[in-house]
Amino acid sequence: MLIEMGRAARTASKQLALAATEKKNRTLLTLADYLDEARADVLAANGQDVEEGRKSGLSEALIDRLMLNDKRIDGLVSDLRHLAELPDPVGERYDETVLPNGLSLHKQRVPLGVLGVIYESRPNVTVDVAGLSIKTGNAAILRGGSETLASNRALVGLVQKALVANGLPAETVQFIDDRDRARVHELLKLHEYVDIIIPRGGAKLHQFCRENSQIPVITGGIGICHLFVDQSADLDAALPVIHNAKTQRPSVCNALDVLLVHRAIAGDFLPRVLDDLGKDGVTFRADETAMPFVGEPVPSSVQPTGPEDFDTEWVSLVLSLKVVEGLDEAIAHIGTHGTAHSDGILTEDDANAARFINEVDSAVVYVNASTRFTDGGQFGLGAEVAISTQRLHTRGPMGLRELTTYKWVAQGEYHVRA
Amino acid sequence: MLIEMGRAARTASKQLALAATEKKNRTLLTLADYLDEARADVLAANGQDVEEGRKSGLSEALIDRLMLNDKRIDGLVSDLRHLAELPDPVGERYDETVLPNGLSLHKQRVPLGVLGVIYESRPNVTVDVAGLSIKTGNAAILRGGSETLASNRALVGLVQKALVANGLPAETVQFIDDRDRARVHELLKLHEYVDIIIPRGGAKLHQFCRENSQIPVITGGIGICHLFVDQSADLDAALPVIHNAKTQRPSVCNALDVLLVHRAIAGDFLPRVLDDLGKDGVTFRADETAMPFVGEPVPSSVQPTGPEDFDTEWVSLVLSLKVVEGLDEAIAHIGTHGTAHSDGILTEDDANAARFINEVDSAVVYVNASTRFTDGGQFGLGAEVAISTQRLHTRGPMGLRELTTYKWVAQGEYHVRA
Repeated sequence: MLIEMGRAARTASKQLALAATEKKNRTLLTLADYLDEARADVLAANGQDVEEGRKSGLSEALIDRLMLNDKRIDGLVSDLRHLAELPDPVGERYDETVLPNGLSLHKQRVPLGVLGVIYESRPNVTVDVAGLSIKTGNAAILRGGSETLASNRALVGLVQKALVANGLPAETVQFIDDRDRARVHELLKLHEYVDIIIPRGGAKLHQFCRENSQIPVITGGIGICHLFVDQSADLDAALPVIHNAKTQRPSVCNALDVLLVHRAIAGDFLPRVLDDLGKDGVTFRADETAMPFVGEPVPSSVQPTGPEDFDTEWVSLVLSLKVVEGLDEAIAHIGTHGTAHSDGILTEDDANAARFINEVDSAVVYVNASTRFTDGGQFGLGAEVAISTQRLHTRGPMGLRELTTYKWVAQGEYHVRA
Repeated sequence: MLIEMGRAARTASKQLALAATEKKNRTLLTLADYLDEARADVLAANGQDVEEGRKSGLSEALIDRLMLNDKRIDGLVSDLRHLAELPDPVGERYDETVLPNGLSLHKQRVPLGVLGVIYESRPNVTVDVAGLSIKTGNAAILRGGSETLASNRALVGLVQKALVANGLPAETVQFIDDRDRARVHELLKLHEYVDIIIPRGGAKLHQFCRENSQIPVITGGIGICHLFVDQSADLDAALPVIHNAKTQRPSVCNALDVLLVHRAIAGDFLPRVLDDLGKDGVTFRADETAMPFVGEPVPSSVQPTGPEDFDTEWVSLVLSLKVVEGLDEAIAHIGTHGTAHSDGILTEDDANAARFINEVDSAVVYVNASTRFTDGGQFGLGAEVAISTQRLHTRGPMGLRELTTYKWVAQGEYHVRA
């Protein structure tokens, strides 16, 4: 069954790769309209998923991720309309050169081909990924969460209707309408028909894909993020950055997990951090280096660190605290405990900033800014498919361009190699 | 054992990533000198491998690939000196921008980390890859052919001596000094310590790596290459291009395998091809579309095609022939039977050239040029590690830059996300 989907996707991808920008954009706008008009049907299907989810005992947090409502559908509709306005990366020429022998050479962006996207409960990802695929001329095979079958069926139905209405193959976006986990395994082996696997979910999903895939996998999304407050930092300015990095949206991968503070300022600064972030419900894990600076008696928001607390992505209002002797120790700690996602320094010392930039090898390295900026939209990429923490093809926010590859084009006058 | 190597490589890679360009270049020049001076030892070790190879019944072709001599060592020495002169990709800044909120953003090239390179008999690859790794700030774990252990031991000994002499860790370049094939399997699972697997060898090696690796694999090197002679081509000019693509070095992946000829000119042109290439020993496989045009009686150099002859990389002086009705059929044939390596059109018709460029999705698409140009050196990349026919990270010739990745650097003034 999956081989048939793979073949159909490959065929569709060839047609989509040649589709004009205008046609792809029109499809996105049609889909936005359909979604807007058919929202009652989508919400009904989603209601069914939610009901079944409740019956089978899903947590309220999962139910919330699974649930669509008018506001969320409005968001999807406006995202699709925005996507239609973004520049099309396909066809872009770059690295143009003429070789000494007169051969003209350039690279030309082309779609990756067929994307395999494996994700968990959120049905909005279905529309999101469908839109990004269409825009970038890729076909996609989607494997959503087993608890969202009815929602995905309704949404993919609209996507396919919009494709066909614009003369594009329905098979551009297919989804695996089957709860059997064996299908994920099958998908990961379809290397003849699928060019890239993008898992969107937790660490276990990424690990499963890496271990079982015969197709290149973009792993990522796991961020144990650090900020180091250097001795020279403007502490009044640093505090809001830390507050923002930790509290603005604690459930996401670019939220702050570990605060490293230079010993010279720890006595002054750590109590301010406890006070400022504590007001917004942050609790702290202080190790033996930080504990002496949290005040006496130890505030109720502070616990001593457990053995895993510097290797945990909190995804909640918890912050690990460590006091370090200086830049070297901060860099070493990040190298050992980080996930190479987003790490920053707060400093007024240019030499330290330069060393931090060079020596911390994370997907995004910050100087005097919140880690929360690691995001395709924030970086001006227009959209975001995933955040990569692996090193090949793309690192950090993966936008439209990162869903393409290139071909070399060489044009000569009957050139032969000497 | 391999885990230890992996750990040591990771540690070395961190030091190498920060090494100054001048230090890396000095190491390359030292290695060139050592290799030049110690050639007697290297040749003696290689002689041992050759002797053992002969005893164990290796074919003369394999013995030739395995054998080093003064001329080959001269080549390695001069390649290393040339490599030292090339620009260092590491540290290059690009895609610089200032976001509307004032955050400065750029990408900065950094080494990939640790390369795992698996190759077959040729010991020159050992020096080649060692040099490229050092230049690009990567550590490497090499797994050479089991028939070249003594040569590789001698060569890696020199590499490590050159590293240490320049204050770089010996573990920058390690090789698996063990004939057991289980080690290859182990290497492919070392995803914590190895960032990319580069197989250099035949289709089976690539398949084995793809199926067993938990690390991204750059597959490639298999080229079923096509040229399509359009009706409008300048036939006098086209003939030397075909001759060059087929005969200049038939044993390599960018050599021509299949010639597609437009029916309108087949009667005139195919006999000229048979004559011109036949003089240099090329033999032909003509299918039922081409057979009517090869003349009567059928020349002895022409055989009817077998069922696999359009799906075979010849790696020898054989050329498959097919007559097509026009551009559509040529593009469709390449899409079905090609390996997306190097394919070209010979034409004077700009519209056909443009369609061929857009619709043939190969790593390198040619207009009026020999497929033999697909090569890092020819493309001005300075060097070449491999030719990729997969779609992620790099396509076509993989040079120094393609052995790097990037980090994003974001610099603000205590910026917070709104």
